[in-house]
Amino acid sequence: MPHPNPHSIIFPAEHLRQFTTRVFEHFKVPPAEAALAADVLAYSDEHGIDSHGIARLKTYADLLKAGRINPQPEIKIIRGKGSVATVDGDNGLGLVVGPQCMELAMQKAQEFGSGWVSVQNTNHYGAAGYYPIMALQKDLIGLSMTNTTKGVAPFNGAEKMLGTTPLAIAFPALTEPPVVIDFASSAVAYGKVEIARRKGEKVPLGWCLDKEGYPTHEPADMMEGGALLPLGSDVNGSGHKGYCLAAMVDILTAVLSGANWGPFAVPFAIHVAPSGQQVGKGIGHFFGALDIEGFRDKTEFKQSLDDWIHTMRSTKPLPNSPGVIIPGDPERQAYAERMKQGIPLHPEVVASLEVISDYTGVALAKPV
Amino acid sequence: MPHPNPHSIIFPAEHLRQFTTRVFEHFKVPPAEAALAADVLAYSDEHGIDSHGIARLKTYADLLKAGRINPQPEIKIIRGKGSVATVDGDNGLGLVVGPQCMELAMQKAQEFGSGWVSVQNTNHYGAAGYYPIMALQKDLIGLSMTNTTKGVAPFNGAEKMLGTTPLAIAFPALTEPPVVIDFASSAVAYGKVEIARRKGEKVPLGWCLDKEGYPTHEPADMMEGGALLPLGSDVNGSGHKGYCLAAMVDILTAVLSGANWGPFAVPFAIHVAPSGQQVGKGIGHFFGALDIEGFRDKTEFKQSLDDWIHTMRSTKPLPNSPGVIIPGDPERQAYAERMKQGIPLHPEVVASLEVISDYTGVALAKPV
Repeated sequence: MPHPNPHSIIFPAEHLRQFTTRVFEHFKVPPAEAALAADVLAYSDEHGIDSHGIARLKTYADLLKAGRINPQPEIKIIRGKGSVATVDGDNGLGLVVGPQCMELAMQKAQEFGSGWVSVQNTNHYGAAGYYPIMALQKDLIGLSMTNTTKGVAPFNGAEKMLGTTPLAIAFPALTEPPVVIDFASSAVAYGKVEIARRKGEKVPLGWCLDKEGYPTHEPADMMEGGALLPLGSDVNGSGHKGYCLAAMVDILTAVLSGANWGPFAVPFAIHVAPSGQQVGKGIGHFFGALDIEGFRDKTEFKQSLDDWIHTMRSTKPLPNSPGVIIPGDPERQAYAERMKQGIPLHPEVVASLEVISDYTGVALAKPV
Repeated sequence: MPHPNPHSIIFPAEHLRQFTTRVFEHFKVPPAEAALAADVLAYSDEHGIDSHGIARLKTYADLLKAGRINPQPEIKIIRGKGSVATVDGDNGLGLVVGPQCMELAMQKAQEFGSGWVSVQNTNHYGAAGYYPIMALQKDLIGLSMTNTTKGVAPFNGAEKMLGTTPLAIAFPALTEPPVVIDFASSAVAYGKVEIARRKGEKVPLGWCLDKEGYPTHEPADMMEGGALLPLGSDVNGSGHKGYCLAAMVDILTAVLSGANWGPFAVPFAIHVAPSGQQVGKGIGHFFGALDIEGFRDKTEFKQSLDDWIHTMRSTKPLPNSPGVIIPGDPERQAYAERMKQGIPLHPEVVASLEVISDYTGVALAKPV
């Protein structure tokens, strides 16, 4: 759930989309693709996923400026068979490669009942949840995964070897909004530990390890050579399951496509040089789509999902909790608020946009 | 990892397979299908997954005896499109329906690059990991999921609404053994809490809730009206992610196929009557197969997976831990031991087999 910061500066959503589009255009991204990339980032800002939206624009811009991302990739299918294919993203923006590959998976699902596209030689693709939502209008179930820069220790390991490797999947309902699942396979996001450090707060045991591999309450211990823990954290919490989930995503996205897997995943940060050893090309994504009509009458499916949603919402609530919600609810609530009130940006994010504005000459429209 | 019980009674693996086969035959399961069902159960016993093997035979037998499982199902494809299909298991043993549906997914993958089969009107199918392993010999990635009797509270809920809903996926390597992932989406298995109660031990917070929804150390609190927690357990551990995983599996297996989903999943226990309300037929499975050659040269993929395995094994170990292992290692280690020494069964399991032997007339061969 988004926690509005009292110091946030509010921008109209449309201003941020235009700024983002023009910044990508400045770096020679063709106009239609710049608008597409801006749409992927705007999805996060408009839905309260503050870590994956315009807050990352400076990193995309830095990497484009440094020539580490190709603004005009020739995205090519390099292998395929019926319902499956592998795409070479030609080191393009994941924000551009991703939507095109998700479209390909959707076309295949319409032809073959399902479509599965693995992608090599690509880069950070924003929020994983953007892609499965694309599938919903066509009555498809959509799925996306990506591998990411190393940050997480495998179960019983004491160093970063895997990324936070998110998995997202979305299902359309009839009268209810869709079920939209999007979660990383680490116990928590890096950003949560970063925020605790900024506030001078400690973190619960189970979030991270220090550089020797000992559990720690100190955010700085993780950030200075330590690692995040996988979902489940430790032996009592079944941390091996989070490791299994991360392994599944890393193998499907990067080993299957021929991208850099595990600790070799290309870092998404201008100050971190890529690993000297390359075991593939770029990072990897994996997209999927399933045609509901191939399995069941789509209206029956959606009616049934409505019933599922009503049943879960009616669960007896945990004492002192808001009760059971449906995956996708927090993002929809944020969207409703932000479409009325605008997008609240942290002053540090605004400062990063001003730096971009200075070096690109793209004007940052005034806040609300 | 299996913990051998000092009171275990050791049986040759082959004796248990024969006993299981004859018990299924006694209940009118045709011989080839009885042998197949026995093979699925034997997989668990031979690989150290003691909770899902012959320890469950009495429940299968009880349900067959009571007419709650159909021994001679007419398993039918009821819908399909290219790479996907839905199968009606005609209320057969999941141990018989499952392998046939996994075969169908594999055939589709060989024809279309991928194959996906949702199954309604089926029953408990043993260990989820059996099915993806079937795919490995054909250079396919295999996947299986099932929904199960309610036992887990959704995040922020205080009652059982979802099953432990396992997910299994397997990937073939070249010179290394395959990566075999098989885990339930709950923090721990019901059996772990049951064992703690038998030993008079407390359980860590994060495993379960009491009937009011409060976290508890007491196994009895969970077993008497409480619930297991999802992977991640609570707000600090990101229990919403385990709930998301369970939701994904429940929707893919049961809403997509037209089976009973969520709290309506048919119980796998003779003393628990099925829910008065039916929202579909039986429980649901979901099987998948991906043809590696459709994505990447299969030898390159396997070589790359070998490298992935070596890299993960070389992770700096957590202090005082055995270090990082590869999913599938514990089961392979158990298999190597048990193929030499036989299958250790808990005396309570042996007693349950003697009861079956009494009422079926099938002789239980002597232990080693």
